[in-house]
Amino acid sequence: MANVSEQDLGRFVADVFTRLGMSRGDGGKVSDALVWANLRGVDSHGVVRLPRYLEFVDQGRMNLRPAISIENSSPAGIKIDGDRAPGPVAMAIALDHLIPRARTQGIAVAVVGRITHTGALGYYALKAAEAGMACVAFNASIPLMTYHGANGAAVGTNPLAIAVPGGEGSDPLLFDMATSVVSLGKLMQARRAGTPLQPGWFVDEVGNPTTDPAAASLSLPLGGPKGSGLSLMIECLTSLIAGNPIVADALEKTGEGAKHRQNALLIAIDISKFVDLAAFRGQVLRLVSALKGLPLAPGAVDILMPGERGFRTMNDRRAKGIPLPPPVIKDMTAIAQRLEVPPLQILG
Amino acid sequence: MANVSEQDLGRFVADVFTRLGMSRGDGGKVSDALVWANLRGVDSHGVVRLPRYLEFVDQGRMNLRPAISIENSSPAGIKIDGDRAPGPVAMAIALDHLIPRARTQGIAVAVVGRITHTGALGYYALKAAEAGMACVAFNASIPLMTYHGANGAAVGTNPLAIAVPGGEGSDPLLFDMATSVVSLGKLMQARRAGTPLQPGWFVDEVGNPTTDPAAASLSLPLGGPKGSGLSLMIECLTSLIAGNPIVADALEKTGEGAKHRQNALLIAIDISKFVDLAAFRGQVLRLVSALKGLPLAPGAVDILMPGERGFRTMNDRRAKGIPLPPPVIKDMTAIAQRLEVPPLQILG
Repeated sequence: MANVSEQDLGRFVADVFTRLGMSRGDGGKVSDALVWANLRGVDSHGVVRLPRYLEFVDQGRMNLRPAISIENSSPAGIKIDGDRAPGPVAMAIALDHLIPRARTQGIAVAVVGRITHTGALGYYALKAAEAGMACVAFNASIPLMTYHGANGAAVGTNPLAIAVPGGEGSDPLLFDMATSVVSLGKLMQARRAGTPLQPGWFVDEVGNPTTDPAAASLSLPLGGPKGSGLSLMIECLTSLIAGNPIVADALEKTGEGAKHRQNALLIAIDISKFVDLAAFRGQVLRLVSALKGLPLAPGAVDILMPGERGFRTMNDRRAKGIPLPPPVIKDMTAIAQRLEVPPLQILG
Repeated sequence: MANVSEQDLGRFVADVFTRLGMSRGDGGKVSDALVWANLRGVDSHGVVRLPRYLEFVDQGRMNLRPAISIENSSPAGIKIDGDRAPGPVAMAIALDHLIPRARTQGIAVAVVGRITHTGALGYYALKAAEAGMACVAFNASIPLMTYHGANGAAVGTNPLAIAVPGGEGSDPLLFDMATSVVSLGKLMQARRAGTPLQPGWFVDEVGNPTTDPAAASLSLPLGGPKGSGLSLMIECLTSLIAGNPIVADALEKTGEGAKHRQNALLIAIDISKFVDLAAFRGQVLRLVSALKGLPLAPGAVDILMPGERGFRTMNDRRAKGIPLPPPVIKDMTAIAQRLEVPPLQILG
């Protein structure tokens, strides 16, 4: 592992996107989202994605100069057409409009259609929570998971994220889960390391269970009908409300087929309209204390709150640097050479 | 099994509650929610609950003449204090206010605090979908499930429901899941039948895994940290926004402790504000067709959409009657005698 600083990793990603033609401001948004994931230890959603993003740019799939449109659909609702923007750029605009509306209306929704990879969905839910909101967020992508009862790629590993402010001086609670048993990141890690997968995580392309990372190709849904049903509902809430269906196009091989694209839906609730925000924060603290005061389960070493591990890792990596494995460093070096941007600085 | 008609079962439940002092209108709301669950085959949330409801009434926990207050918290948000009303009574009021607000604001939220058992959460989400809304609903209850890493009762089996309108002439899609691996209804059924539970479903009161229905007492969360984290977030979204904390009181043995009570949060999105509703319905139909057109997984006999099994069972039970097992019939007969209401009529 080679360590890099948060600042230099952010600088590097922003350099890459500005060199490719993106505005400095937008490049910073993409960079912040990717580095945030690396800081929190969600490395599957960090800079490991950069080579794939560049492929999207080369294919004309990710638009670095998007004409993002914002439609005032209703007093508490906005609809954004992302014009294939990188997810973080369109999602930042969505949050900028969503939070002020939630403050006046009590709740607001942003439907964000026709974007590319959002990165870690929790990033946006956290920003809303930091503004005193309760946030519920959904994100839909192309089919990489089975649907209960069916064979083959059917639905996305579509995540759900929920965040609320934490106790005074404490971190927010940040819940972010894929609807698959485990994330595709686990498969990518196992492929790189050559270690077997756990049974029940993945199937091969014809639907047979497998623990071989080379053969595994599709995620299995969390709890069978629960995970796949939730993923399907997320496709409805995001892609169908945005008017940009992903699953049907992919399965029918019509429209854009299985080409990468995403849609999202962000809901923000202004907690202070319903209960005193300081009292709410106090109750979160009390709830967390009560749960942490329970006896440990056999074999457990800690009782963690949603997002807590990520906040810990973030503090740690801010102090010590972000570790990147050799294949990722190699990819970053190749990108630096190709685009003639200053390479990552490896910490001593 | 003895069969009863939907109409007579509804009449019976309404008779019971009006005899206990509830208005005819409110009794009908409780009756509709319970019979709906029985019709759909969600028997764990049907009239099997009636004896427990009567205990709640006897204990003064369920208030049959509640003074329900409705606060206009914000243009798109309402807050309801249920005054310990039966869930269906307060939730019906919530829907009556929620849907018109969503129609003007694009999205609306109802925070419903201090209620008793809501019955099946999907019942309310479905009503919103039938009004052309996308609905996301959460419901919190007392701790009957473990929290990942902790021993003992920690959080509720708090469900999440999502519903959207279906294709023209088709049923809505209705997703309704507990955050536990399986519902407590499965435990109650196994206790009655004396059949063993599956490993990984429940633990005993000191946290040991068990398949013995007599020893099992707490649900295990779906996917470990995922299910218990989601349940915790639902407690925050419902109980803490409503200002009626359940989990902390129960774990600290303060306030109302672990006495039965619930809180809920309903979000309705007026789909027509973002996309043509007929086009949305067409896309739902297309999505369902694409998924149903996939090859069956090994061993699968059907590819079911969220809620589809329930709609099928409902059609079947409307035609043939609702089957009730002997212990439930016995309970209903005892209730009829105690309250001097006409007993259930068993179909020939």
